[in-house]
Amino acid sequence: MTKPNMNYANLKDSYLFFGIAQKVKKYSELNPDKKILRLGIGDVSLPLCKTVISALTEGVSDQAEKSSFQGYMPECGAPFLRTTIAEFYRKKGVDISDDEVFVSSGASDELGDILDLFDKENSALVIEPAYPAYVDANVIAGRKIIHLSSSIENGFTPEPDEDHITDIIYICSPNNPTGAVFTKEKLKKWVDFANRHGSVILFDAAYEAFIEQDNIPHSIFEIDGAITCAIEICSLSKTAGFTGTRLGYTVIPKALVRSGMNFNSMWVRNRTTKTNGVSYIIQKGGAAVFTDEGQIEIKENIAYYKGNAKILMRVLDGCGIEYTGGVNAPYIWLKCPKGLGSWEFFDLLLDKIQVVGTPGEGFGKAGEGFFRFSTFGSRENTNEAADRLKHLFKSL
Amino acid sequence: MTKPNMNYANLKDSYLFFGIAQKVKKYSELNPDKKILRLGIGDVSLPLCKTVISALTEGVSDQAEKSSFQGYMPECGAPFLRTTIAEFYRKKGVDISDDEVFVSSGASDELGDILDLFDKENSALVIEPAYPAYVDANVIAGRKIIHLSSSIENGFTPEPDEDHITDIIYICSPNNPTGAVFTKEKLKKWVDFANRHGSVILFDAAYEAFIEQDNIPHSIFEIDGAITCAIEICSLSKTAGFTGTRLGYTVIPKALVRSGMNFNSMWVRNRTTKTNGVSYIIQKGGAAVFTDEGQIEIKENIAYYKGNAKILMRVLDGCGIEYTGGVNAPYIWLKCPKGLGSWEFFDLLLDKIQVVGTPGEGFGKAGEGFFRFSTFGSRENTNEAADRLKHLFKSL
Repeated sequence: MTKPNMNYANLKDSYLFFGIAQKVKKYSELNPDKKILRLGIGDVSLPLCKTVISALTEGVSDQAEKSSFQGYMPECGAPFLRTTIAEFYRKKGVDISDDEVFVSSGASDELGDILDLFDKENSALVIEPAYPAYVDANVIAGRKIIHLSSSIENGFTPEPDEDHITDIIYICSPNNPTGAVFTKEKLKKWVDFANRHGSVILFDAAYEAFIEQDNIPHSIFEIDGAITCAIEICSLSKTAGFTGTRLGYTVIPKALVRSGMNFNSMWVRNRTTKTNGVSYIIQKGGAAVFTDEGQIEIKENIAYYKGNAKILMRVLDGCGIEYTGGVNAPYIWLKCPKGLGSWEFFDLLLDKIQVVGTPGEGFGKAGEGFFRFSTFGSRENTNEAADRLKHLFKSL
Repeated sequence: MTKPNMNYANLKDSYLFFGIAQKVKKYSELNPDKKILRLGIGDVSLPLCKTVISALTEGVSDQAEKSSFQGYMPECGAPFLRTTIAEFYRKKGVDISDDEVFVSSGASDELGDILDLFDKENSALVIEPAYPAYVDANVIAGRKIIHLSSSIENGFTPEPDEDHITDIIYICSPNNPTGAVFTKEKLKKWVDFANRHGSVILFDAAYEAFIEQDNIPHSIFEIDGAITCAIEICSLSKTAGFTGTRLGYTVIPKALVRSGMNFNSMWVRNRTTKTNGVSYIIQKGGAAVFTDEGQIEIKENIAYYKGNAKILMRVLDGCGIEYTGGVNAPYIWLKCPKGLGSWEFFDLLLDKIQVVGTPGEGFGKAGEGFFRFSTFGSRENTNEAADRLKHLFKSL
């Protein structure tokens, strides 16, 4: 008799964003005349940039002709893209080789898949509030999870401590949902801690393109010692608007070894077994992001979203609402006014002003009483949401 | 201290197709003047059909404009594609609902990912010779594997027997590598067996589009009772030349329940946790396959490959070589002449006539002494390979 993976029964009933979507769907069915403004899920709103569109178009054309047709891609990524990405790192002074780069279908897929490299008995440290899939993917695998709460007092970037030694450590910087960033010094402490205890850091760098201040590492591999303790997971979703186009990349240094097993080789073996690679067309589009033109164009889009952040921050500043993020990150993380719980605040915003955000509690208990706004909306909607928020805050 | 997943150490050194690629690469570096003809890996050679190219082009255009831009796709698949696929089934008389269809990045990805639904202690039955990833993915997960040998005597479609009761049962029909097909009667025996013992069948239907004879099921759900014991994994790779474009789909009936857990709901939860869906552009292209025009065009391509099969079969018939497949499948599975081992025959073909095929032993011990040809090459190369093979066989 087949036994299902009973760990699914230990998951909370519904995944956060899916749950929000259902709630909003229900509201809009009951109130079809209301205009809902979504600052919830971190989905982008600007179309793909020109250089990427040209490359995607070329990719499609290649698939139309026998002479240029591409069948199975190499499982770890098309060489043209692995080289491009490795060069992008090297230009920034991070010395990695082409075969330390793996192309993925996106960071969310990779964050789930990568756990295949670890023993089921490994424990995982999640600094909360956190992207819920860190916890859920480990619940599905039956791993023990240590929740390390961060707080507004430590700027949502806690330091490691000897009471919380685990095998796997998740660090997301710039952080989703708090927008907080680890400085080089703070990240160095985690790298030393991981090396000292033989832990492996899963570094989620999905938002690195939003960093604007100096001394904030774009890659964990800017930190001495990281190549023996870290895997970096990156995405073009936010960097270049690929949320619905799908592409990411992962760096696994060859120096990352535990119990005589080399994680880079293991991942080659995993990929050659469990995938036939990522779509050629999409990899063509992805490579265009790293060209000079591509870089200029994506930076224009990022500047646009940062404009949205400024609009929302102005309202929060004006109303005396405490928050983090908005600077090196596309998220603004605010303390719910009047001591409201985060789902209470969610319902209030939906009911009163039809603004959808993400309740902090959805990112773990440490998020209770907080709320996340995404800055990926259109300028028009962000302006309108800012107005509505201002009125609401003044009326509370 | 992080413990890696030590099951990787139990894998054979290198994945079959990766290993072959390395061997061929080495040969061609040493013999740059020799023209190598590849009938090895099952990669297609015809470009995507017109209707698909148009849809992909439209998908790319949609991503270029704000008004049509698509961000995150629903994790289980775009509704337009789930509906299209479910209708495709219903037209064939198989009654499944839209939300029993899940869109995937391809069958190879899905065959690995789907194991997440099963307990680690489950055992898996693999009818060998078999696609090596069935075994390897379960080795990585640490599962016990029961190898059930099939043979030329039972037409490579063995019947279930009470000595081999397992939790998970892999069935691939039309079969890779043998090209053998399960009739409705034979498949019914497996379905009854699975229901009797509470097993779950993972039915790999990647080659269903190649079926030309009556009474051969295109879907396991044509068999009474399958909805309570089977998951069907399909791919557009061979159906529509998507090997490098990537798209597949999976059917998980809502009636599939074990220990009170519903596999369809579990998979929804898995997808909403571990992926952000499949590329919008590619899903647009995939939907075009199921239109009337798309169906006509892909059938022309399949007919072309079947022409290749006939050319190779003529040589084998003429030389008295025993084989299966070539009719309802894109593979021809032959008995190596003169009692040669399958890697011996591989080396002989590479050295003497520069034809690359796949050694049967790579599909499990039951494949030793056999050899697989793919019919996905160009007509020109297939003709040339057929000539070279004829000469070689006559000289042995």
